[in-house]
Amino acid sequence: MSDVVDSSRQADARSFHVGCTLTYEVSAETAFIFNVMPRHSHSQETFDERIVVTPHIQMDEYTEQVHGNRYHRLHCIEPTSLTVQLDATVKSTPQLHDPSAPQLADLPSQLPLDMLTYLFPTRYCQSEQLQNFAAREFSHIPRGLAQVDAICDWIYQNITYELGSTGSMTTAGDTFMFRAGVCRDFTHLAIALCRAVAIPARFVTGYAAGLDPPDFHAILEVWIGDRWHLFDPTRKIFLEQFVRIGIGRDAAEASFAFIFGDAYMTHMNVYCVEQNEEG
Amino acid sequence: MSDVVDSSRQADARSFHVGCTLTYEVSAETAFIFNVMPRHSHSQETFDERIVVTPHIQMDEYTEQVHGNRYHRLHCIEPTSLTVQLDATVKSTPQLHDPSAPQLADLPSQLPLDMLTYLFPTRYCQSEQLQNFAAREFSHIPRGLAQVDAICDWIYQNITYELGSTGSMTTAGDTFMFRAGVCRDFTHLAIALCRAVAIPARFVTGYAAGLDPPDFHAILEVWIGDRWHLFDPTRKIFLEQFVRIGIGRDAAEASFAFIFGDAYMTHMNVYCVEQNEEG
Amino acid sequence: MSDVVDSSRQADARSFHVGCTLTYEVSAETAFIFNVMPRHSHSQETFDERIVVTPHIQMDEYTEQVHGNRYHRLHCIEPTSLTVQLDATVKSTPQLHDPSAPQLADLPSQLPLDMLTYLFPTRYCQSEQLQNFAAREFSHIPRGLAQVDAICDWIYQNITYELGSTGSMTTAGDTFMFRAGVCRDFTHLAIALCRAVAIPARFVTGYAAGLDPPDFHAILEVWIGDRWHLFDPTRKIFLEQFVRIGIGRDAAEASFAFIFGDAYMTHMNVYCVEQNEEG
Amino acid sequence: MSDVVDSSRQADARSFHVGCTLTYEVSAETAFIFNVMPRHSHSQETFDERIVVTPHIQMDEYTEQVHGNRYHRLHCIEPTSLTVQLDATVKSTPQLHDPSAPQLADLPSQLPLDMLTYLFPTRYCQSEQLQNFAAREFSHIPRGLAQVDAICDWIYQNITYELGSTGSMTTAGDTFMFRAGVCRDFTHLAIALCRAVAIPARFVTGYAAGLDPPDFHAILEVWIGDRWHLFDPTRKIFLEQFVRIGIGRDAAEASFAFIFGDAYMTHMNVYCVEQNEEG
Repeated sequence: MSDVVDSSRQADARSFHVGCTLTYEVSAETAFIFNVMPRHSHSQETFDERIVVTPHIQMDEYTEQVHGNRYHRLHCIEPTSLTVQLDATVKSTPQLHDPSAPQLADLPSQLPLDMLTYLFPTRYCQSEQLQNFAAREFSHIPRGLAQVDAICDWIYQNITYELGSTGSMTTAGDTFMFRAGVCRDFTHLAIALCRAVAIPARFVTGYAAGLDPPDFHAILEVWIGDRWHLFDPTRKIFLEQFVRIGIGRDAAEASFAFIFGDAYMTHMNVYCVEQNEEG
Repeated sequence: MSDVVDSSRQADARSFHVGCTLTYEVSAETAFIFNVMPRHSHSQETFDERIVVTPHIQMDEYTEQVHGNRYHRLHCIEPTSLTVQLDATVKSTPQLHDPSAPQLADLPSQLPLDMLTYLFPTRYCQSEQLQNFAAREFSHIPRGLAQVDAICDWIYQNITYELGSTGSMTTAGDTFMFRAGVCRDFTHLAIALCRAVAIPARFVTGYAAGLDPPDFHAILEVWIGDRWHLFDPTRKIFLEQFVRIGIGRDAAEASFAFIFGDAYMTHMNVYCVEQNEEG
Repeated sequence: MSDVVDSSRQADARSFHVGCTLTYEVSAETAFIFNVMPRHSHSQETFDERIVVTPHIQMDEYTEQVHGNRYHRLHCIEPTSLTVQLDATVKSTPQLHDPSAPQLADLPSQLPLDMLTYLFPTRYCQSEQLQNFAAREFSHIPRGLAQVDAICDWIYQNITYELGSTGSMTTAGDTFMFRAGVCRDFTHLAIALCRAVAIPARFVTGYAAGLDPPDFHAILEVWIGDRWHLFDPTRKIFLEQFVRIGIGRDAAEASFAFIFGDAYMTHMNVYCVEQNEEG
Repeated sequence: MSDVVDSSRQADARSFHVGCTLTYEVSAETAFIFNVMPRHSHSQETFDERIVVTPHIQMDEYTEQVHGNRYHRLHCIEPTSLTVQLDATVKSTPQLHDPSAPQLADLPSQLPLDMLTYLFPTRYCQSEQLQNFAAREFSHIPRGLAQVDAICDWIYQNITYELGSTGSMTTAGDTFMFRAGVCRDFTHLAIALCRAVAIPARFVTGYAAGLDPPDFHAILEVWIGDRWHLFDPTRKIFLEQFVRIGIGRDAAEASFAFIFGDAYMTHMNVYCVEQNEEG
């Protein structure tokens, strides 16, 4: 136990049973790089992790250096129907921020310079185009968690959650104009607006208990007061029930599957169930 | 001395006198992060480096971890006219690739996974949108340096170099459609096309002797056969006369100045002169 | 009979049985404006035209002034399942251009000024952005039908016809970059490239015999030598088997249905069968 | 004097001295089509109209059918420095709408169908992309002049007028995102939002007394209650002091000069001075 007064609060440890089944029709030689494994971190431990590929194909396993993404790569030499099944138990003790003690964000003049990369515009987050809007709408709010809260509230109130309304090339700018999207779009817009007010922000994928319909989820995290804080502008989940998978500047870097060749998904099943400790 | 046959060739050491003067009209509190210093690497050494700010303001100096960009940060508290002057001597021994021994690029199934980040689409390089074009135009060419050569030739033949034709938000897609641009645009399009054929590519800024008119220059480098290779699709310079400054996935990450506040440039002067060794 | 030598040739009269069934789920008060009737013109006569709406709702009928589009408007006051059925027999004597006698297009300095409107960029045909490309690729070809042929050939060779690859907001620029699309996209790109070389061009919808799968079709027509000439860059149909419906500067003006309210299509069936005269 | 109660009010007749001088450097054979003449209409009469071209080149004069734009076309066969000077006196009796008697707009189910063309999205007014935003923000306001007022107010409050912030390819969508622009951009955004709530809207260019700096001006007009009504979302002018030139669906159709060839403007001077009747 620490005496240090910390604006974050340590949530209770929770345990989740997570996994997915992904099936692809592969019509030519294809390399797949999956990013579906729960990440390893001080706040998230994995047990009984099992990944099965049918037909059996050898996989590379690699943890990338910058963000700690856990890649599984496999190489289909010939046409086939490929199924990847992942199953794991994850124990998570997320650190959540305490809404009653909002923290201030570093000014650009003080920000650790390794964070600069999370301020730059990226493929799906054209923060530089939204700078005037963000300044008008959010610059009167104290820099920091309060500002990110305001950004997420604005998105929740102004963007309609609508399955199928967008696609894999939809950007934050498109969503800002079109006013509809799914979790990926809500998160891209939140990231773009945070960067536009000079708060470092990035894209996080994960498994989320209670998500309806079940799917991979995408939320953002922002760098404020020497740590990363999670936010979900869709308000679809409890942050305590989120199991982290991948991290990237935007969805381009944190997709659950990168495909080089000729294949399309025919089936996807994702689950995340919180374990009843007494059960 | 090594007996290993290497397709690259070590160019002779050369020496350059480089520098720049940048003047800004600052109208409110503003933080600047400059990325104008010649980078430190095994093939590039800097001597007599001197950076002067007028009026005198203390600067942070920081070398960022992922790409080795050398940032200088300064904080103008109040309106002023700010001048930054950099001057250095650089000794460079660039490794250039040998056109007579073209190397093959790794397939995505073999690529070091830390290189994956240089295949993703970025703000100004929408490689995923150019995939069909790239496959039609370049996939019959052996993967590797020959393919990058073909991409750079295609750009040189199809895009007109035209000062003032584009702006700071112009993307590779815009340039592909508009068929005109400057070095930044040529390089973005080359990066996008390389990524579209699964060759890792990134953006490099630098000082270049003989560039007319004098300015910062931007070219690309691609990862093939375990190292990075420079290419200049504008054909404006000799690669032996390029002194590297910054590296990024695209211009968003390697701009020579990031500005947070309210300032605009009123004057810029850039120089790079090769030193006559006998002189 | 005329003695005038004409580069166009009068095709034989042909007869077609055309029609469509469109079903919508209407969830709130909605106005529909349909543009599905074969147009009336000197080269196209309609017989036994019948349009039936279920449930029965009174329709406005109106032929718009500029392009002669035949609108049917109906107003659903309340939620319903709406079906519109059209059936007609059309006798057509299309004037087709004679490929052996290519005509020249007017220069902008001579063009009838009422044609100027068909040179302007429109929502889905950003001709001004493709001007450099068009000049490089097509300006060495004699202005006129030969140039339009070259444009349509280029599109046929460089764009892949791919059902489902694009959507209702896809532009000529998107298609130019993405290199795939459907008839609407092929036609938008052809229009944009014609306008970029200063040939007036517009969008024409119609029924087409032999189209597989059956659907409404979209092609372009260009103004050369005092009349309009049809072109189909998809090469999916014989122009003699095309029954014209609507005309517009692009698809925005010639959609088969404009919907103001809340409705979506649940079913569509389109047919066009050439009548065997002996049959 | 009429006894008819009319929500519009007839402004007093006013007289304006208007004109422009446009100079172009022409480097190759070029056709120009100018649209700079005050239009002829029941509310606007022109006197002492004089257009002079130096060097002297014969001009076509043509009034286009759909919108009544008055085109002057001239053909430079060889490189030259071209100056066009227009000067005229205009007597105007604009009909302005009476803010105290707001009129309702036709529903799409009742709108004259010749007005449908002013509801379609155009090159610079992507109304279909702004439909969700427009519905949320403006659909609670009574259809008609009040709604257009609300749209213009919203634009005035949310978009910054900033000379040089945009270019000739900037769209309403860009302006919506970027939140800055000039009169052309304000007007495009207003048109797009009006169309998005199903109010026919179009682009009008003109001379405006008191505009600072002097320039051509662009505003919109909307079709409500059987006539067109002018609105200026920039609030830079008094509508009584506006002399109309061209009309189009957007700026693509109402540019003051269309250029086919190779020329760029080196000088422009525009004036509009209200005549003191006693003077």
